[in-house]
Amino acid sequence: MWFRGDLVHCPNLGELNVLYDYILGVDQSGYIAYVAPATTAESLAIIHASKEPIILVPRGSFLLPTFCDLHLHAPQFLYQGTGLHLPLMEWLNEYAFRAEESLDANPILAEKVYRRLATRLIENGTGAVLLFGTIKTETNIILARVMQEAGLRAFVGKLSMDISSRATYVEQSAESSLHSARSFVDQCHNLCAHMPAHERLVEPVITPRFVPTCSDGLLEGLGKLAAEKTLRVQSHMAEAHDQMDWVRRERGADDVDIFARHGLLTPRTVQAHCTFLGAPALSDIARRGTAVAHCPLSNAYFSAQPFRLREALQRGVRVGLGTDIAGGYDVDIMGSMRQAVAVSRMREGARIMADTNEDGQVAEGARQVNLAVDWKEALYLATRGGALALGLPAGCGTFTVGAPFDAQFIRVFSETTGEGIGSLDFFDTDKNAAKRKTLAVDMIEKWWCLGDHRNREGMWVQGRKVSAP
Amino acid sequence: MWFRGDLVHCPNLGELNVLYDYILGVDQSGYIAYVAPATTAESLAIIHASKEPIILVPRGSFLLPTFCDLHLHAPQFLYQGTGLHLPLMEWLNEYAFRAEESLDANPILAEKVYRRLATRLIENGTGAVLLFGTIKTETNIILARVMQEAGLRAFVGKLSMDISSRATYVEQSAESSLHSARSFVDQCHNLCAHMPAHERLVEPVITPRFVPTCSDGLLEGLGKLAAEKTLRVQSHMAEAHDQMDWVRRERGADDVDIFARHGLLTPRTVQAHCTFLGAPALSDIARRGTAVAHCPLSNAYFSAQPFRLREALQRGVRVGLGTDIAGGYDVDIMGSMRQAVAVSRMREGARIMADTNEDGQVAEGARQVNLAVDWKEALYLATRGGALALGLPAGCGTFTVGAPFDAQFIRVFSETTGEGIGSLDFFDTDKNAAKRKTLAVDMIEKWWCLGDHRNREGMWVQGRKVSAP
Ligand SMILES: [Zn+2]
Ligand SMILES: [Zn+2]
Repeated sequence: MWFRGDLVHCPNLGELNVLYDYILGVDQSGYIAYVAPATTAESLAIIHASKEPIILVPRGSFLLPTFCDLHLHAPQFLYQGTGLHLPLMEWLNEYAFRAEESLDANPILAEKVYRRLATRLIENGTGAVLLFGTIKTETNIILARVMQEAGLRAFVGKLSMDISSRATYVEQSAESSLHSARSFVDQCHNLCAHMPAHERLVEPVITPRFVPTCSDGLLEGLGKLAAEKTLRVQSHMAEAHDQMDWVRRERGADDVDIFARHGLLTPRTVQAHCTFLGAPALSDIARRGTAVAHCPLSNAYFSAQPFRLREALQRGVRVGLGTDIAGGYDVDIMGSMRQAVAVSRMREGARIMADTNEDGQVAEGARQVNLAVDWKEALYLATRGGALALGLPAGCGTFTVGAPFDAQFIRVFSETTGEGIGSLDFFDTDKNAAKRKTLAVDMIEKWWCLGDHRNREGMWVQGRKVSAP
Repeated sequence: MWFRGDLVHCPNLGELNVLYDYILGVDQSGYIAYVAPATTAESLAIIHASKEPIILVPRGSFLLPTFCDLHLHAPQFLYQGTGLHLPLMEWLNEYAFRAEESLDANPILAEKVYRRLATRLIENGTGAVLLFGTIKTETNIILARVMQEAGLRAFVGKLSMDISSRATYVEQSAESSLHSARSFVDQCHNLCAHMPAHERLVEPVITPRFVPTCSDGLLEGLGKLAAEKTLRVQSHMAEAHDQMDWVRRERGADDVDIFARHGLLTPRTVQAHCTFLGAPALSDIARRGTAVAHCPLSNAYFSAQPFRLREALQRGVRVGLGTDIAGGYDVDIMGSMRQAVAVSRMREGARIMADTNEDGQVAEGARQVNLAVDWKEALYLATRGGALALGLPAGCGTFTVGAPFDAQFIRVFSETTGEGIGSLDFFDTDKNAAKRKTLAVDMIEKWWCLGDHRNREGMWVQGRKVSAP
């Protein structure tokens, strides 16, 4: 499969590359095999020799790596966008646990919800997703199967939780919970066992819900299981004020210490939120290689303080973005990017205010770090940053030879009329919109601000075109 | 014109009323003449006697008052969603002034930009808008004419600015600026002078850009002009840290004092932002009857600190929402509502953190005010609150007899299939989606979180259906 046109990717934080008029080749297994300007001698020879038609990405459109969503509660998609008035611990009991329980009781409903979720992920350009499921193995196998069938790269977590939950939605003991986790891991592996490696898109993830609902015995067992089978781990860490207080009171330690003690802060771990981690804790998890799923919308609703994004990035913590459905209400990672930037600018504003004395001068000893991230940095977090945090195959999240071809086709203006697509309006002062020459970076910025599903015309994961199941 | 179906409005802050199966009648002049349950004897008689067909609002749809946008720079629509990396004062010079200048130099481009803006306002359900224009009278008359033709309720401000701007985009003296303002007011009034009162949708607004670009002589003259002709006033007040410092340094006073001194804080004034007003200043402007255009997205980018929304509401300040195109990038007021709630929840989080001592207990002397606003309050601000802040005709922003019929038609699920529209997904645990009975409040909440242009099927202003010009 060959493409010719503009490619946009963010190989490093803050770096946005537009590769104008490139040829990109994808091999039979879905890996990128060739990337070069279309006008080199080699590319011209390829274009001439190609037996299959080359897919043209016309002027005004570009390929972009798919988005990665590092935190999404699949069963909570049932009620996304409702009930957001409650504090975290009440909301969990009133909405989250209830929704999860209802799906565990109703496999037909579960399949329906998960298929619709897959449809929405595809509509929104999310190619890789780290999922929290429910406690019941069978329901999570439905989730894994739906994602595999939809062609999405999905990391599926069967929830582990053996204490402090509603009586009807809790596992009976650490032992039975561990048995169930192991059984899910095996069944999930079996789902794809007959497929060639490059077609296996779904993997199981060790998923203690969060410290309050997991006994030390369970956490210890999960840590050992993750190590034994070299599995990814996910949980919630240092999310909310009431949650932190609860853990400190009941367990006499902080989330970080408890997870670390049980071997759950590994280089294959993604922890959601981490809003209450200060600089030393961020350095600590950076050293351990543990990544963070930054969920700025959910944080605004439930966390009482924002995640220290810039500080985490500076300390080398791998960070990606998460929607946290349904603590966040929008499955569109573009909303997470926009919120991440807005929140970071508010943090930078607060820093400036705190560091400025009454004469309007910068106070002595003021930190001079810019806490704001810009749209290019947010785009990195949503693509390459997320891929690195998830530990996806080498090169993933960029257009480089050897990387899986995970890409979305974005159209910002019409090649024929020069008119913007969807919510995007372009005005030419030279009255000659149709002759628009190149994809300017500020057109990509406008798409970043205003783009929606109308600008997305296709998505590929591991070289396969995906469409709504 | 008669409607039958569900009506949703917010008559008071925090109050969301769903009027199930109502009859609503609109008179020839576009005012609401009848509102009552469809099953009263009187309503039944009306339904039977009606000669014109009654417009049915089917199950899953509702009428909602149109949105009010209290702060939008019409010429900056030219470049919305670009250049947001700069601080306020640099951004103004680099982007804002340049865009405005280019429209003043090019009436064809101005007409094109303003027509597209009108299209986008209609697409997004905004029926009333308070606009900043440019400095040139003719360009603002184009703006007023386009809005009147589009059928939108528009308050159009010719910019007044006579100092501290780029040499090519500034008025030459306070006298010439005042002359130009007076001329615009007369020409704008003349646009609609031949029409019956209820068809006049456009009004001129006295619009000093902000204190830094207006001499005291100009401000004094504008205050007198506003008083003489009983005109609305708008400007920017206490927006950004660098702007505040500049004013204090150059003028030896704060924005509030300077505006107040010149009679520009009236009950017909709407001031944008006001992020740097503390409790005493909020009480002061409440006493003067001056309203605030709260622009939370723009504030996150440019203001260094959030507006004290709850405190303003508690002190009786009239507040509505503004998009602040292009300091904000999105003309959709639903984005402003969502951002207003997210920011207010972050403020409440910060308050809780500040008021909690190390033992997790509420500190003595802690304020117990909830700074968070919820989605219902935000919906009030976007409709009724905005209408009151703008001083629209009595009842505007609600469905009450005597109010102008300014309404949008919102569809959340299909009457025939029960399926959600656009981004909205509804799942029925009783497997009987098609038999969905009523519009539950949490469906409106879901629309508030996730709705977009796909959920909007029509809009009326002063009883007239409006569609893209
Ligand atoms: Zn979560
Ligand atoms: Zn403004």
